[in-house]
Amino acid sequence: MTGTGQLWVAGLGPGDQDLITPQVQAALAAATDVVGYFPYVERVPERPNLRRHASDNRQELARAQEALALAADGRQVVVVSSGDPGVFAMAAAVFEAIENGPSDWRALTVEVLPGISAMLAASARAGAPLGHDFCCLNLSDNLKPWSIIERRLQLAAEADLAMAFYNPRSKARPEGFARALATLRSVCEPERCVILARAVSTPEEQVTVTTLAEVVPEQVDMRTLVLIGSSQTRVLSRLTGDQPWVYTPRQYHSDVKSRRDI
Amino acid sequence: MTGTGQLWVAGLGPGDQDLITPQVQAALAAATDVVGYFPYVERVPERPNLRRHASDNRQELARAQEALALAADGRQVVVVSSGDPGVFAMAAAVFEAIENGPSDWRALTVEVLPGISAMLAASARAGAPLGHDFCCLNLSDNLKPWSIIERRLQLAAEADLAMAFYNPRSKARPEGFARALATLRSVCEPERCVILARAVSTPEEQVTVTTLAEVVPEQVDMRTLVLIGSSQTRVLSRLTGDQPWVYTPRQYHSDVKSRRDI
Repeated sequence: MTGTGQLWVAGLGPGDQDLITPQVQAALAAATDVVGYFPYVERVPERPNLRRHASDNRQELARAQEALALAADGRQVVVVSSGDPGVFAMAAAVFEAIENGPSDWRALTVEVLPGISAMLAASARAGAPLGHDFCCLNLSDNLKPWSIIERRLQLAAEADLAMAFYNPRSKARPEGFARALATLRSVCEPERCVILARAVSTPEEQVTVTTLAEVVPEQVDMRTLVLIGSSQTRVLSRLTGDQPWVYTPRQYHSDVKSRRDI
Repeated sequence: MTGTGQLWVAGLGPGDQDLITPQVQAALAAATDVVGYFPYVERVPERPNLRRHASDNRQELARAQEALALAADGRQVVVVSSGDPGVFAMAAAVFEAIENGPSDWRALTVEVLPGISAMLAASARAGAPLGHDFCCLNLSDNLKPWSIIERRLQLAAEADLAMAFYNPRSKARPEGFARALATLRSVCEPERCVILARAVSTPEEQVTVTTLAEVVPEQVDMRTLVLIGSSQTRVLSRLTGDQPWVYTPRQYHSDVKSRRDI
């Protein structure tokens, strides 16, 4: 192993280039190698002396190992994630590869560079639905049993947390989101606010404000971030006729007034 | 009301200027007025034709009303928050002020500009402790009863979520964090990983990796972001003698192997 290698795990944010931090831009400018899922690698412009290593979805561990081997070989490597690399993204896969890899990987300089997470970008577009206590759950049962997901949904609803859901509905297993809705409907009132935020900050952005009673699973795909309000979350109509603002107040009232303020 | 006013609610990130997005920098460059808690307003450089309106802590609602009145008067106003404005910060206060304010405020253009949250910056410095399902709780009982906080802590621990705590310990009410630890200790094992991340990305940054058994409340103040691992969270020693890396794996094992991997 040469001593000069370095690995950054960097968040590119949800899509808009103006949401990439200067810190991440500096790492990309210093890199010799960029490693990641191909649509994210494509967001990094080609330039001389930059090798781009694009791989397919679900190759997270192999991708992390490739990046670590490059860094151990003395290269300046950026692993790119969309959103924030620490939220259901590449940072955990890199440390998992280190734990199970050659011991000299533990001598590498590894830096995680935070990014604007999809969850916080979606929340900002809607108003401030995560303005009070909330949780962030991955609804994919690819790497954990559905029983754990169900238990977490149930307890989060009982705790009256707002919620953000990643990977709500895959093509391979489309039934998960319907099951999640059934669990929420067993605890929460039908008027509970639901926000479907698709492809936030990209040209395909679409944000829908609906309710637990009205939402149907087919409105959601893998590019959708789902936000669920708490019992306190409020929907504010606008004079402009635009989509309403949604926010969760800082104060907790145990006697909730009507949530829909028309 | 003149029709040209605009209100942005912008996140300045945790402290490092390189963590401010170009989107927020552009809003600050276009602003006629910057409104916020004084240490955040001081982070925006003075320039001609920029009025800076700094106010004290706990003036959130009055500050939001001042900003909305300026925007309604036709000015280009940025309300600044540290971290992300949607996480226990100014965005919720602005919408609360709109809900209870003059109806023409609902015709204003209001945009929330996300920032790097303290929680995700702290997580990045430690490794990837929030790499799987987690919750984000405000431990201040200034605006909600302690019973709600306690119930949420209990249910989040039962759900085996990683956790991020904002406002863990104020000078006015220092006993809250000790009570939170007691609740966690009644559910979680003593080896549960605890990260104390103080003033992340500033010159005073200090990150401590400890356990639920060992942490003492006096290690924490209002500038500390506290992260609690799940039962799955792992601590990786490094060959360099630096602070260990902490990460929560993407996969959920119900039979947990030893968490501390020395």
